[in-house]
Amino acid sequence: VYPVGNYTFGSKPPKFEKDSSVTQRLERLKEKYAREGLRRSVEAVLVVHEHGHPHVLVLQMGASFFKLPGGRLRPGEDEAEGMLRKLHSLLAPPAENMRPDWRVSDLLGTWWRPNFENMMYPYCPAHVARPKEVKRLFLIALPERCYLSVPKNMRLVAVPLFELYDNISRYGPVISSIPALLSRF
Amino acid sequence: VYPVGNYTFGSKPPKFEKDSSVTQRLERLKEKYAREGLRRSVEAVLVVHEHGHPHVLVLQMGASFFKLPGGRLRPGEDEAEGMLRKLHSLLAPPAENMRPDWRVSDLLGTWWRPNFENMMYPYCPAHVARPKEVKRLFLIALPERCYLSVPKNMRLVAVPLFELYDNISRYGPVISSIPALLSRF
Ligand SMILES: [Zn+2]
Ligand SMILES: [Zn+2]
Ligand SMILES: [Zn+2]
Ligand SMILES: [Zn+2]
Repeated sequence: VYPVGNYTFGSKPPKFEKDSSVTQRLERLKEKYAREGLRRSVEAVLVVHEHGHPHVLVLQMGASFFKLPGGRLRPGEDEAEGMLRKLHSLLAPPAENMRPDWRVSDLLGTWWRPNFENMMYPYCPAHVARPKEVKRLFLIALPERCYLSVPKNMRLVAVPLFELYDNISRYGPVISSIPALLSRF
Repeated sequence: VYPVGNYTFGSKPPKFEKDSSVTQRLERLKEKYAREGLRRSVEAVLVVHEHGHPHVLVLQMGASFFKLPGGRLRPGEDEAEGMLRKLHSLLAPPAENMRPDWRVSDLLGTWWRPNFENMMYPYCPAHVARPKEVKRLFLIALPERCYLSVPKNMRLVAVPLFELYDNISRYGPVISSIPALLSRF
């Protein structure tokens, strides 16, 4: 883990979410599920040091929507490959030769969406034979130095662990669990 | 992970907590800290299947106090050795030759107590140079079958993940984080 000052942050054209509301997102999940079955997603936990303490890089959209870099895998796509594809698309500079040499490291946790609803759980609830989405969080090893380009409609914020911890109301259950998930390292 | 029905549960003489209140416990921590410095503790996460779903074995004392099997390491004691010593003392049948062949498996997480206070965090808070306690949670691999003896003043309860999850008010922050900590397996 390297100091945040090792990284150079730039911006690139905006990347809009495919859905503009939760309802719309769940509707699209439902349609896709009918065609493709279980959605597989991956999300990246990128850790940097700021004044010596670990911070997690989180994408912020608007005042209060936070997400980890990541997204949906294509049918049959390998998890690590899909993770890198999503990282490139969201955070790499547009020039191919400036792509950060990030590495997919440890699996941190797995979250399940049992229904076409917002709630996810870190287990597949009993007697749910057909969960709708499974999302895996991976720790990403950042190179010692690199360039990162953030879509203009997002901010990349470095959030300290104490701010994430036990803060479901602001960050949701997945992101606020990251301090516990990282505590084994 | 094996079905809970594989295990035979008996009882043995009561094992009382050294402290009868939180205040007393923190007072003793303070005294010990003055002599020995940072307290190191270990706690065991034992997983069994009940009607096919994972449950965590938790010790219950009275109506509403829950703890994981574990405790304080001796100065200089190895973590895995200390974990086994605590498991034997709390859950093994009195006869030496009936000791379960449990194995200390993965480190699940680390919790820190920055002050002589009840709160622990899954990170050492910034600028806390002298934390008072560090507690590590280990996943324990139970043998396929064995005998377990529970002190008469405690109950050993198998709690399903959905009951622990997001239930800080009943189980506290450490035990209620176990579903997320186990979700990488
Ligand atoms: Zn900071
Ligand atoms: Zn600082
Ligand atoms: Zn049950
Ligand atoms: Zn069942």
